[in-house]
Amino acid sequence: MIVVLAPQATKENLMQVTNMLEERGYAVHITEGVAQTIVGAIGLPTDPTAKGEVMEQFESLAYVDKVVAVTKPYKIVSRQFRPEPTVITVRGIRIGDPTFAVIMAGPCTVETESQLRESARAVKDAGAHILRGGAFKPSTSPYSFHGHGESALKMLAAARDEFDMPVITEVMDVRDVDLVCKYADILQIGTRNMANFSLLREVGKTQTPVMLKRGMSATIEEWLQAAEYIASQGNTNIILCERGIRTFETYTRNTFDLNAIPAVKELSHLPIIADPSHATGKASLVSAVSRGAIAAGADGLIIEVHPSPETALKDGAQSLRPEAFRELLRDLDPVCRAVGRRM
Amino acid sequence: MIVVLAPQATKENLMQVTNMLEERGYAVHITEGVAQTIVGAIGLPTDPTAKGEVMEQFESLAYVDKVVAVTKPYKIVSRQFRPEPTVITVRGIRIGDPTFAVIMAGPCTVETESQLRESARAVKDAGAHILRGGAFKPSTSPYSFHGHGESALKMLAAARDEFDMPVITEVMDVRDVDLVCKYADILQIGTRNMANFSLLREVGKTQTPVMLKRGMSATIEEWLQAAEYIASQGNTNIILCERGIRTFETYTRNTFDLNAIPAVKELSHLPIIADPSHATGKASLVSAVSRGAIAAGADGLIIEVHPSPETALKDGAQSLRPEAFRELLRDLDPVCRAVGRRM
Amino acid sequence: MIVVLAPQATKENLMQVTNMLEERGYAVHITEGVAQTIVGAIGLPTDPTAKGEVMEQFESLAYVDKVVAVTKPYKIVSRQFRPEPTVITVRGIRIGDPTFAVIMAGPCTVETESQLRESARAVKDAGAHILRGGAFKPSTSPYSFHGHGESALKMLAAARDEFDMPVITEVMDVRDVDLVCKYADILQIGTRNMANFSLLREVGKTQTPVMLKRGMSATIEEWLQAAEYIASQGNTNIILCERGIRTFETYTRNTFDLNAIPAVKELSHLPIIADPSHATGKASLVSAVSRGAIAAGADGLIIEVHPSPETALKDGAQSLRPEAFRELLRDLDPVCRAVGRRM
Amino acid sequence: MIVVLAPQATKENLMQVTNMLEERGYAVHITEGVAQTIVGAIGLPTDPTAKGEVMEQFESLAYVDKVVAVTKPYKIVSRQFRPEPTVITVRGIRIGDPTFAVIMAGPCTVETESQLRESARAVKDAGAHILRGGAFKPSTSPYSFHGHGESALKMLAAARDEFDMPVITEVMDVRDVDLVCKYADILQIGTRNMANFSLLREVGKTQTPVMLKRGMSATIEEWLQAAEYIASQGNTNIILCERGIRTFETYTRNTFDLNAIPAVKELSHLPIIADPSHATGKASLVSAVSRGAIAAGADGLIIEVHPSPETALKDGAQSLRPEAFRELLRDLDPVCRAVGRRM
Repeated sequence: MIVVLAPQATKENLMQVTNMLEERGYAVHITEGVAQTIVGAIGLPTDPTAKGEVMEQFESLAYVDKVVAVTKPYKIVSRQFRPEPTVITVRGIRIGDPTFAVIMAGPCTVETESQLRESARAVKDAGAHILRGGAFKPSTSPYSFHGHGESALKMLAAARDEFDMPVITEVMDVRDVDLVCKYADILQIGTRNMANFSLLREVGKTQTPVMLKRGMSATIEEWLQAAEYIASQGNTNIILCERGIRTFETYTRNTFDLNAIPAVKELSHLPIIADPSHATGKASLVSAVSRGAIAAGADGLIIEVHPSPETALKDGAQSLRPEAFRELLRDLDPVCRAVGRRM
Repeated sequence: MIVVLAPQATKENLMQVTNMLEERGYAVHITEGVAQTIVGAIGLPTDPTAKGEVMEQFESLAYVDKVVAVTKPYKIVSRQFRPEPTVITVRGIRIGDPTFAVIMAGPCTVETESQLRESARAVKDAGAHILRGGAFKPSTSPYSFHGHGESALKMLAAARDEFDMPVITEVMDVRDVDLVCKYADILQIGTRNMANFSLLREVGKTQTPVMLKRGMSATIEEWLQAAEYIASQGNTNIILCERGIRTFETYTRNTFDLNAIPAVKELSHLPIIADPSHATGKASLVSAVSRGAIAAGADGLIIEVHPSPETALKDGAQSLRPEAFRELLRDLDPVCRAVGRRM
Repeated sequence: MIVVLAPQATKENLMQVTNMLEERGYAVHITEGVAQTIVGAIGLPTDPTAKGEVMEQFESLAYVDKVVAVTKPYKIVSRQFRPEPTVITVRGIRIGDPTFAVIMAGPCTVETESQLRESARAVKDAGAHILRGGAFKPSTSPYSFHGHGESALKMLAAARDEFDMPVITEVMDVRDVDLVCKYADILQIGTRNMANFSLLREVGKTQTPVMLKRGMSATIEEWLQAAEYIASQGNTNIILCERGIRTFETYTRNTFDLNAIPAVKELSHLPIIADPSHATGKASLVSAVSRGAIAAGADGLIIEVHPSPETALKDGAQSLRPEAFRELLRDLDPVCRAVGRRM
Repeated sequence: MIVVLAPQATKENLMQVTNMLEERGYAVHITEGVAQTIVGAIGLPTDPTAKGEVMEQFESLAYVDKVVAVTKPYKIVSRQFRPEPTVITVRGIRIGDPTFAVIMAGPCTVETESQLRESARAVKDAGAHILRGGAFKPSTSPYSFHGHGESALKMLAAARDEFDMPVITEVMDVRDVDLVCKYADILQIGTRNMANFSLLREVGKTQTPVMLKRGMSATIEEWLQAAEYIASQGNTNIILCERGIRTFETYTRNTFDLNAIPAVKELSHLPIIADPSHATGKASLVSAVSRGAIAAGADGLIIEVHPSPETALKDGAQSLRPEAFRELLRDLDPVCRAVGRRM
């Protein structure tokens, strides 16, 4: 249940509503908007049969605009809770703004300082806004490379300063959240950790924006519930990322679920980014899928770019060379404009 | 193996190549292009170890331009066989032309003459090029409506004449192929029949263009092999149609596999159309997925439009009202232009 | 809706019920059991809102025992329609009998007379009851072997006579149904044709038993509806066959859905057979999956056995050698007994 | 690469082999068996091209029996590494012993002391060996019940002492590993955490046996690599658990992958347990799937039993009543015997 206060409602009114909800057994979550304040009542009333009655009581209050029942298992991240799109601003870059398409790019893994600087310069020159790079890497095999950890985080922070680009990097362990927050502008939760609820709660306790990748076998609504885990801890700076799901198809690494873009837009107010690199696993398909995602309403892209993909420690087959990335953005530009976005 | 004849090669040269191939144990498939003739050698030579030698022999002939090994299980429909895109012209409408986006639209099922005429007028007015409508309908239940059969075909033909639009309709039974060919401009093979090899061969014996929908659990390469069944019988007027695959996701009816658009383009020269109505199963998602498909390189769309979806005999939830369809095309137009296509 | 007549009901009573149902807009399907006659009312009454009333009317008739609403989209094949298991007897072999496990075995494809006779002798000696062998073969590629057709059917019929084993073989084309019926004791509908509704209806018009394989991406309830297509035409001699479904797993060819065995048993009265050869695609896994299927309640197995799998024209990797098949049956025997079945 | 020492090899020989391997760039993992010692050389030699040469060098040593190349990405858990099955003994209960079928049972969640005691008594009386019960529960929604944590662990420990049954319970957070180890006899890693590599490594550092559930979209070989994560840290007391995978089927909660049982047995020496409760999600299917799993070679079962499923806080639909559980074990007993196991 969501209680939307009237524009003229005072702080006192808000406190009254909060108290009344808590008395009836609800947990309360407050979102103060520019024009209106919204109070989320989470859970069920002590007496669940009285739910309709409770709604009427609140609706009759003079300083309450409307009361909305939210039947979805996700509340705070639902479109019902917040009809207008959420925009998250990271060092001046606006993610979720319907007039802007954000481009995140960089290597899968931070390998060396020179590789990262070369990548950062290349993607910046081509027009990217945010630098990606892995310091902690999930890997199916325990014997593979798992990232350079803190030293890679330091290289990312150095690259951010040199090239004036916010950086995004993955956090995989609850014990690393503080460390990664020290260096990163956006935390990434990878596909394998989408349902690592401890980790979701831990990043939910920070105020650092979080990009939550869809689990490779998660339904759209399970994904939104994972986002709700983060939001329920107080961090609503959440960016969703569709990175392909696991299906029977073997020609591509994953199946990019285009439906998910407009589906998320109708179910949630959160920004959604597409990751065509993981969704396809093939450099030759990345540009087309990028255009498709933006045309369908994605708020941006995250793309793997590597100065020499054939020597990359991970995911070389899906990484673009800098020149291919430049070409991608050149082809993307008219599509962005066609749907009212600038890059 | 493909033998490309030199531009100056004569009919006699062609016959020589054909004979030589047949002597060595190959079946032969000839495609006479405007500039050059291509001879497909299908199967293995009688002595498979001599394959390399055979290729060299042909390459050394004066009137042979080049010899290409095709390693894929589909030959005639492969991009290696024919590097330039196939364009199929139906009553003046060009399908597969990279500068054009074809729009097919109409009701799921032909219900009544007035329903069909109303639909046809609406989609024609909105800008559609080809009229769709089901006369024979596959239905999961034996007790559901299965289409009006020949009387529906007659209504389609009448609508074609009245509104000057080619018509596309499904054929499900080998015994109906002749009948449907009498009325339809394009035959549709539905998702459940993608691997109905008898039916594929039967439509392969006609020269009527065939739109082959992807099986709901077919890989991209199985789909191309299904197309090869048609082509192997002599009918290369094949249009592929991505209509979504079956996955674990339940919010949408199917999962639109956007990757398949550029993947088909790199593997095959055939046109590919997107069906966002079946791919999503939800009218609210059709417009966004349409834009995404075109931006990723689809040659066109097939969309269910019904004058009153709530009374539709089938698939009402995914059918657009005429006004929503008009709006879709209006929003699609700049995306088409952004990728160099006109509608 | 199902009307179960009282044991003392006469032929006249049956006619009365039939007439009354038809007057109210239902199609009628009659099953005369040993003790009781069951009348299936298919479709909706002319006035759907009167359904409850209609049920009461019939229940009040003296010669009616009970009236059961069937809410499933499949009626005749549902467990509600017929609570006791269907047993189909083919030349004395009882399929669906809870005290018996039927073993069908033989080569994927009928290749030569000697290969078939050698296979038949081997599987007969080992203890199989029914001989399998493909005359018409579906094949993903148009250039692969598609079976020897009628000459293979003749070899099958000869092997049946020589070894006194009923034979099962696939029919893929509506135009071949009569031909295959001439030779086969059981018609097989393959996984690719599970939703080939024309073919289902055509075999439904015969009285030859039909083994209906599950579509590789069909849900259990879609599969039962496919069976209902056959039953709705009058042929209720239907055997279901779980042959694995398509999933993301790549180690095995398909995923054997063990849940489907008891699920089908609770939803339907039809026999269900397991095909561990296609379900695994690996000879090394066939024996274990056979034991699991029988222990979970399958009424029998269909297994690919080939005298020399390494030279098989199709599916060699999943075919057992005769000695491995004998060993499989030896290991299976105690499991059969453990669940109250003899082989 | 695996180096198997001769039976007469001394500690000194072992040290020599270890040193030689480390000099050549390998990491070393030693398994001292009753008869023979096996040395796993993990990774690649410093000079990968010299691999064959290195193998020959070791093979020529007098105290080396044989050298085996392991090509799989999982080494320690592979069948090549250890041909005989691993048996893990927990308070006298032998898991993985081919002559024994272990039964774990209990409620999904520890709710109250009385509910747990009642459950424990019921499953013990029926014949179960190990008590299951959740103290930390993963839940798709942040607003659902997440388990009673340490107080539930204490109740489990008390039940263990009272009923003399080892207990198994899930650990979800790296920070809880020590705590859970204090109370539990077996740690469970749930399906959502199968690829939570930090957690795998953390439980790998303990010596407490770990039951690793298959990720709901993990291939068999990814699952074995997850087990390798645990093993690579030194804890080889790993039990695998097939709990169903996510597919398109909706009648059941998951699809029980029966193929996985013999597939794991051929790829690995680790015990494998089946979880028919989660694999089906339906109490009515649990008994049949249990029999199928054991007949196919599973080393045991884990089953949800609740004194009153309709009031269970979680997963009531799949929980058995005590009497249904007793009946399940009664029906299972002859199947166990049929495959050479006692319960």
